[in-house]
Amino acid sequence: MGSGPPSDPRMRGFSRRTTVDDALRWISENAARCEAETVSILDCCGRTLAQDVTSRVNVPGFRRAMMDGYAIRAVDSEGASAMNRLPVRIIGQVLPGEQSELRLHSGEAIRIMTGAAAPEGCDCVIPVERTEKGDDDNQVFLVESLTPGKNVARVGEDISADNTVLTTGRVLRPQDVGVLSSIGVGEVSVVRQPRVRIVVTGNELLPPGSIPRDFQIVDANSPMLAGLIQRDGGLSQNPGIIPDNSAAITEALHDDVDIVLVSGGSSVGQEDFAPSLLAEHGDLAIHGIAMRPSSPAGMGTLGRRLVFLLPGNPVSCLCAYDFFAGQAIRLLGGRSPNWPYRSVQLPLRRKLISTVGRVDYARVQLIDDQVEPLAISGASVLSSTTRADGFIVIPSDSEGFPADQVVEVFLY
Amino acid sequence: MGSGPPSDPRMRGFSRRTTVDDALRWISENAARCEAETVSILDCCGRTLAQDVTSRVNVPGFRRAMMDGYAIRAVDSEGASAMNRLPVRIIGQVLPGEQSELRLHSGEAIRIMTGAAAPEGCDCVIPVERTEKGDDDNQVFLVESLTPGKNVARVGEDISADNTVLTTGRVLRPQDVGVLSSIGVGEVSVVRQPRVRIVVTGNELLPPGSIPRDFQIVDANSPMLAGLIQRDGGLSQNPGIIPDNSAAITEALHDDVDIVLVSGGSSVGQEDFAPSLLAEHGDLAIHGIAMRPSSPAGMGTLGRRLVFLLPGNPVSCLCAYDFFAGQAIRLLGGRSPNWPYRSVQLPLRRKLISTVGRVDYARVQLIDDQVEPLAISGASVLSSTTRADGFIVIPSDSEGFPADQVVEVFLY
Repeated sequence: MGSGPPSDPRMRGFSRRTTVDDALRWISENAARCEAETVSILDCCGRTLAQDVTSRVNVPGFRRAMMDGYAIRAVDSEGASAMNRLPVRIIGQVLPGEQSELRLHSGEAIRIMTGAAAPEGCDCVIPVERTEKGDDDNQVFLVESLTPGKNVARVGEDISADNTVLTTGRVLRPQDVGVLSSIGVGEVSVVRQPRVRIVVTGNELLPPGSIPRDFQIVDANSPMLAGLIQRDGGLSQNPGIIPDNSAAITEALHDDVDIVLVSGGSSVGQEDFAPSLLAEHGDLAIHGIAMRPSSPAGMGTLGRRLVFLLPGNPVSCLCAYDFFAGQAIRLLGGRSPNWPYRSVQLPLRRKLISTVGRVDYARVQLIDDQVEPLAISGASVLSSTTRADGFIVIPSDSEGFPADQVVEVFLY
Repeated sequence: MGSGPPSDPRMRGFSRRTTVDDALRWISENAARCEAETVSILDCCGRTLAQDVTSRVNVPGFRRAMMDGYAIRAVDSEGASAMNRLPVRIIGQVLPGEQSELRLHSGEAIRIMTGAAAPEGCDCVIPVERTEKGDDDNQVFLVESLTPGKNVARVGEDISADNTVLTTGRVLRPQDVGVLSSIGVGEVSVVRQPRVRIVVTGNELLPPGSIPRDFQIVDANSPMLAGLIQRDGGLSQNPGIIPDNSAAITEALHDDVDIVLVSGGSSVGQEDFAPSLLAEHGDLAIHGIAMRPSSPAGMGTLGRRLVFLLPGNPVSCLCAYDFFAGQAIRLLGGRSPNWPYRSVQLPLRRKLISTVGRVDYARVQLIDDQVEPLAISGASVLSSTTRADGFIVIPSDSEGFPADQVVEVFLY
């Protein structure tokens, strides 16, 4: 192969570019969900369920008082009102968690707290607010008429045994975790979080925390990518900047992870080793994509790893991550491939020109509920993405949008 | 005080209920932002900036090549095209990070890679794709006419020294962290994350991971609250279930945290110690709120802590958290007090009845882009919040909504 595979575009440029749609199709065909792992329900919030969960118990498992008040027979409250207070005799009380031996008969009341088991013989609970103090401590007046079953939860009213409560693929919400706990689940099977290696290359780069000096710049991409990977449910690893040489990059590409993101060294410059190394050691499926920015982006496989080549320019890096790598990370983690951005539909303040045959990722500001495209000269202007409120995507078959056209803005 | 403060509602019920608006006003008056702390930029994503950040450097700090290609003088490319290839002589190359001694004259080209410093004497970079191989290795043909400045980033083009790049209160996005890194910031001042103690009381409760048995149920609230607190940027602490007795609850209320959430024991049952203990040791500002569910919710202060009394019923607990405690946590952490839920406007499939004088939190499903209220009998039915896609809020002055009315649904 000599200096690289036959398609090596170094210092020659891309002869053709893959469409964004084809690149997304490649991802959907190659990004397989990670296997399941078992985690404590104390650690499962936000994770993706890898199995259906069926309850083995009824919730509640006993007739349960829903109010603080008195367990009674509904028939004893018939006709009760503030004008017609009906007395009942208090024969005891039952607290939450207690197993009570008390048995209620007509004309009797048992003091009961929310969550306690309704004693045998009662059929409803009258809230304390619907009673009045009796003539002595053992009496209480009912001032409301109740129907049987009122304020008593039936066995299995919340969840019945053998019912499926949550299904595979669910991204667990806080309340889902509560439900799992309530049915006695201590551990759940969830999709393993994809491990993502960040490979930042470039002899011109200084590590985050450095002051830029001479002709060196500080690596902006690895801390940005770490935040994006975390957002998308991946576990990022980044042992530091990799020098621009084949051996170091090859070693990093072979890291024991699910996804490798190579930032920098991915274009057509002569120091851009990553594409040809990927072609040599694995499969460089796509290199060069019809989009702006990020046209030098690429992707492929190395063993079981997915490898994404992200341009070194920070905006291109962000864009290529959001279009491709982020989607793959979400798919591996069992999440929706869709963007995790909220979107709004708003009119453009002025026209926005694009080129047919290329997808554009345009940063925009929202001003008075209108969309203002940001004037941007280059893909290196990362500050455009901090000034921007979001972005719009101009499809490949569009020459752009006229002023006042309503467009979909994805909010950062 | 004897058995409690004069307003003790235990086994008597609430004599009046605070409005939701008054409770929210109390929160906005009492929830003060936490102080600043300094963190590494590697740990600041998602945190709230506690100071403006001004750049001390220009980005880029030197004239920077934006493409892989050749540094030339624009004048040498005048009239160049595929039909009129203009030759220039390659006098060397400059790689990213290098300090080059080369100086370019008319008729010359210097091979340059993206990110490298543009050598003295050049005024543009022609991309490699716009050149053709010369008659020998030291020659290249230009096939496009360029204007001065093309593909060369000016000093400070992205960020100028002394410009403010991010302002106080910003919740840092991944790309913000990239910008901070690029201007040489290693640490930033962010709002400290509020520490939140979860106090779950109830003798009927078993810890998460247990199987419910007899008349005991498994604590659903603490794992749910932990997930909610994390979502809202707080740091939760939960050493375990607290027995229903004054000493244990009093000790827990005094934990060294910013916010205490008491779940259970907060209503008017005789075992509901938390409200009177808060009144005794601190200030029980509000107890009983005109809403459903969650009417037994309360709030107050104990020293510098904010204390929220959340009902033990899981749906009530979720609702009181979302209305009150979550907002306080977000405010202390410097975030927006608004709900972190996306909302959509959709029509109701059938009418939804409410009561004037009370705010209702109604769980709903979305079916065919319409809003289906869930039939719910009790606040303990946590599975209603997992079956639900979101909720709607029916304001205090409303008797409900007719069918087909468009309502705002907050999506879980």
